[in-house]
Amino acid sequence: MRLARVAHSEGVSFVALEPDPAAPGEKVLAIEIDQHPFGEPTFTGRRWPMSDVRLLAPILPTKVLCVGKNYAEHAREMGAEPPENPVLFMKPSTSVIGPNVPIKLPADSERVDFEGELAVVIGQPCKDVPEARGTDVLLGYTIANDVTARDQQKADGQWTRAKGYDTFCPLGPWIDTAVDPGDLGLRTELDGELKQESRTSLLTHDVAALVSSVSRVMTLLPGDVLLTGTPAGVGPMQPGQKVSVSIDNLGTLTNPVQQRE
Amino acid sequence: MRLARVAHSEGVSFVALEPDPAAPGEKVLAIEIDQHPFGEPTFTGRRWPMSDVRLLAPILPTKVLCVGKNYAEHAREMGAEPPENPVLFMKPSTSVIGPNVPIKLPADSERVDFEGELAVVIGQPCKDVPEARGTDVLLGYTIANDVTARDQQKADGQWTRAKGYDTFCPLGPWIDTAVDPGDLGLRTELDGELKQESRTSLLTHDVAALVSSVSRVMTLLPGDVLLTGTPAGVGPMQPGQKVSVSIDNLGTLTNPVQQRE
Repeated sequence: MRLARVAHSEGVSFVALEPDPAAPGEKVLAIEIDQHPFGEPTFTGRRWPMSDVRLLAPILPTKVLCVGKNYAEHAREMGAEPPENPVLFMKPSTSVIGPNVPIKLPADSERVDFEGELAVVIGQPCKDVPEARGTDVLLGYTIANDVTARDQQKADGQWTRAKGYDTFCPLGPWIDTAVDPGDLGLRTELDGELKQESRTSLLTHDVAALVSSVSRVMTLLPGDVLLTGTPAGVGPMQPGQKVSVSIDNLGTLTNPVQQRE
Repeated sequence: MRLARVAHSEGVSFVALEPDPAAPGEKVLAIEIDQHPFGEPTFTGRRWPMSDVRLLAPILPTKVLCVGKNYAEHAREMGAEPPENPVLFMKPSTSVIGPNVPIKLPADSERVDFEGELAVVIGQPCKDVPEARGTDVLLGYTIANDVTARDQQKADGQWTRAKGYDTFCPLGPWIDTAVDPGDLGLRTELDGELKQESRTSLLTHDVAALVSSVSRVMTLLPGDVLLTGTPAGVGPMQPGQKVSVSIDNLGTLTNPVQQRE
């Protein structure tokens, strides 16, 4: 199932995205879910054609966990060897935006980079999850852009400022509950030019290992998001450009880039 | 006003803590606040003697921001000079506990330290706060213990794991809305032995500067907590010990220490 959060004429709802039975293969309907999408969702009966809704960030997480240097080739382009344990950091929930919302470049950074990533969404409260059950606790999978002020990341030592600005965590376009995360192609394009291309099979620590590892530190809650790391090819964005991260079976997350006033 | 969150026989409420008019100077009453303490609180009419309630963490923040090396003497004991800009990092909201709740030492750390700190609680949504208005956006002040797995902090580079375990952010005992944060004495005791002793006048970046600085990166929301850094004297805790952080006019935050099963 594809789960999304949408704005419609009467407010904001979680929805399932399903083919329109009247035009299968052509049209998609947004079918309203009662309250929240965790557990077995129930439906309200309301539905909208996609043209009548706007996709928002598919979830509002209580926390966003990230791992650094989880593709060997990216670790090396950053001048490091891939670490034995996942390097954990956080982005504030206020950095989350949805598809098509502008990434805003702060005035005090000289270089803000895209970092396309597979993201996983936690489906249930969990702690000390065994690696063999690492994917069982998930609601599903989505796409993230771990936007990073590269100069500040290098200057600060800690990465919170460089990765924590408002708009620095685009998420979406939806959450797929059924995809197999083992070997998905990932591509990042800047104004249509291919910049990052890799596969999730090249993750140093795979999804199950990451979920298990993070859950041994902290309790994970429904809706928490874990970004699994970016492959090689990161680079800067300029105002007026458009950045798109695509992952097989998960669609494309596109955001324009603007200078922050 | 002193604001707290308490568990009582019928649930959990925000309260104001006020002297019992029947026994002024001796007894304190917990006077229930309707819904939440932001803005001008309204009262429900319910009240309890303190003996009938249990103090919880005074707020459940959407995010906990922290600054490193904000007392010069502590920066030097960590082998660094105090940095020109505040070093920003985060603790997950799942690390927050209240007074008297045990700090749990994870099995995979050899050394878990106390770090007594003044904490400020944000009172309104805010962004790009001018330094001159840095304290105007606050609900008030409380005490925090920025518990840190020192060995993991050194090993990881990023501090999220070392500072992010469940129970690693004791907060309380209450929020004082009226205290002047400019020159408060701070003391940390381990089993009654004085370990940290300093004054908030020695903060390299004061409260107003910190709030302004963080708000230029990210939107701050009501209830968000900002830890202002720890002075010199940090050290390890052992299971069975009790750690107390006291700040003038803010009371004492005490937590026992246990090994995590």
